[in-house]
Amino acid sequence: MLAPERIIRLEDGRVLLLDQRRLPDEEIELECRSAAEVAEAIRGLAVRGAPAIGVAAAYGYALAVERGEDPDEARAVLLTARPTAANLAWALDEVRSASDPAAGARELHEEEVERCRLMSAHAADLIGAGSSALTHCNTGALATGGQGTALGAIQEAWTRGLVRHVFVDETRPLLQGARLTAWELAAAGIPHTVVADAAAGSLLAAGEVDCVLVGADRIAANGDTANKIGTYPLAVLADRHAVPFTVVAPTSTVDLETPTGAEIPIEERDPSEVSTRFAARNPAFDVTPAELISVIVTEHGVHRRPYAESLAEGIPA
Amino acid sequence: MLAPERIIRLEDGRVLLLDQRRLPDEEIELECRSAAEVAEAIRGLAVRGAPAIGVAAAYGYALAVERGEDPDEARAVLLTARPTAANLAWALDEVRSASDPAAGARELHEEEVERCRLMSAHAADLIGAGSSALTHCNTGALATGGQGTALGAIQEAWTRGLVRHVFVDETRPLLQGARLTAWELAAAGIPHTVVADAAAGSLLAAGEVDCVLVGADRIAANGDTANKIGTYPLAVLADRHAVPFTVVAPTSTVDLETPTGAEIPIEERDPSEVSTRFAARNPAFDVTPAELISVIVTEHGVHRRPYAESLAEGIPA
Repeated sequence: MLAPERIIRLEDGRVLLLDQRRLPDEEIELECRSAAEVAEAIRGLAVRGAPAIGVAAAYGYALAVERGEDPDEARAVLLTARPTAANLAWALDEVRSASDPAAGARELHEEEVERCRLMSAHAADLIGAGSSALTHCNTGALATGGQGTALGAIQEAWTRGLVRHVFVDETRPLLQGARLTAWELAAAGIPHTVVADAAAGSLLAAGEVDCVLVGADRIAANGDTANKIGTYPLAVLADRHAVPFTVVAPTSTVDLETPTGAEIPIEERDPSEVSTRFAARNPAFDVTPAELISVIVTEHGVHRRPYAESLAEGIPA
Repeated sequence: MLAPERIIRLEDGRVLLLDQRRLPDEEIELECRSAAEVAEAIRGLAVRGAPAIGVAAAYGYALAVERGEDPDEARAVLLTARPTAANLAWALDEVRSASDPAAGARELHEEEVERCRLMSAHAADLIGAGSSALTHCNTGALATGGQGTALGAIQEAWTRGLVRHVFVDETRPLLQGARLTAWELAAAGIPHTVVADAAAGSLLAAGEVDCVLVGADRIAANGDTANKIGTYPLAVLADRHAVPFTVVAPTSTVDLETPTGAEIPIEERDPSEVSTRFAARNPAFDVTPAELISVIVTEHGVHRRPYAESLAEGIPA
C-alpha cells in the first residue's frame, strides 16, 4: 500500500499531490500553492476519488488560511471544483470548524486512513474463499489517501487468502482502472486482468466473477449510489447473474440531505475526453438504485436494506 | 452512403480495401495481392464487419484463382482469418461454387448490397416517429460493402424522418463506434452523439433511448446472437428499461448448424489492444441470449420468437 503522505500532504506552504494523470508512466508530484491551485488539481483530476478529493480540499483550505487567503473564498473555490462527490463539502465543513486548519486537515486525513482500514476489514469479511472479484474505476490508495474503499477491501481479502484474482474494468474515458487500479494491484503483487468495460457482462455471464465491489461518490439517504459512469450497468448485470454487488464507502460519502439518487447532481465533463473529432457526451457518473445494491459497507460496518434506516443509524444528519 | 466499390473491390489483379484502421483520420486504400494478404487485412481489421468480411474473403478467393494460387490453400487461409463471423465460411462456399470466381465474388457483393437495402427497409418499418436510436460498433457501409445492417436501418429511418438522433457507443477497445460509425453519420449529416460504452446504461435509465439496433457476427439456430463485445450488456439494459432491442443481419450471418450461442467460438484478440502495460484479456464478442432480442431482421423480413422456427423458415440449412 502506498503511504498516505505519498498520495497527498501539506508541507512548507504547499499541497503536494501524486499527479494521477501521469500514472502509470511517471510518478510526479504536483505542487499547489493556493486554494485555487488545489481546486484546479481536483477539477483536472490530478487527484480524484471521493475520499481523496475531501482530503485534498481540506489541505487546500488549510493552505489558504496559512497564506492569509480569504477563508470564505477559498472554501467557495474548492467546493465548486467538482459537483458530485459529497466528501468535498463534508471535508470543508470539518476543517473549517478546526481551531488549527492544518492540524485539522492532517487529522481528517488520518481519520480517512483509519476509516479505510475499518471498511476494508468489514467488506473483506463478506468475501468467500477462492473468489474472483471485479471492480470498476480506482478505489485504492490513490482514491482515498488511505488503503482504499472497494480496492482496499479486495486487497485485504487477498491478504487473507480469500481473493485469488481481480478483474479490472478499464473505465473509459479516463482509464482509471487500466492506469491506476492495475498499477496499484501490480505493485501489491495481486493477480489481475484488465478488461474493456463492455466485457464485464460476458465475464459475469460465464460465471467468472464471484463478487463485484465498487466505491461511491455520493450515497443518497435511501441508498441510491452515484459512482463512476458504468457502475449502474455492472449492478444490473450482477443482479441478473445473482452475483453480490457491494458498495464500499466511508460515511462521509453518505449524504442524508439528498433523499434519492434523482437529486444527486451528475457532473458532465468535457466531451473531448470521449471524442475530439465527433459530437460526444461525457457524464462522469451514474446512479445505481438501492434495490440493486446487495450491501453498503462503511467504517461502521455492513448496512443492509432498507438503507434509509441502516444508513441513518449512527450517521449524523 | 459510401459507394460499395469504395469499401472493397477486385481490380487489376488486386483486392482494394478502404483501410478502416486509418479512419477517420485518413482515407487510404490498402492493396492486397494474394489470398494471404486479404486474410491478413481481415485478421488485422483493415476490413471488418461480418458481411464485409464475407465479401472480402470472396474477392480474396477470386484473386487467388486469377493468380493461379492453390484454391484449397487460399480457402483455408481466408477461412481461419477470424473465427466468429459465420459469413466468412458462407461467402467462401458461395464463390467456390461459381464457374467464374471473380464474377461470383462481384455478384455476391451486389447481393450483399441488395440484402442491406431490404433489411434496412424492414427494420426501419419498426422504428417509431421521433425516435432516438442507440447503436454499438459499426454496422454501416464500412461493415457490409452495402448500406449497412443496423446502421443502414437507422439511416433509412432517418431518411424517412423517423429517427431524430443517434447515440453511438464508442466501442472499446478499437473504437469502431467513435471512429467509423460517427464518421459515417457525420458524412450523412445525421445528428449523433458518441458516448463511452459504460454510459449507455444511464441514457437508457433516463429514457433518452427509444430503440437499440445492433448487427450480428453469428446467429445460432435458436436466435442467440454473437456480436461485438458489449452487445450483451446493452441487451440486458434495454430489457430492464423495456426498450426494443433489434438485431439486423443478413441470413448469411445465421448459422443453423450452430444450435445455440454456447457453441459459437468467441475470438480472443491480442490483449495489447486493451492494455500494453498490465495483464489484460480481450474477448472480441459476446453472446446475447435470444430471450433478450425483441426481433431479428434479415433481408427476408422480421423474424419473431420462437427464433428456432422463424429463422429456419426460408433459410436453407
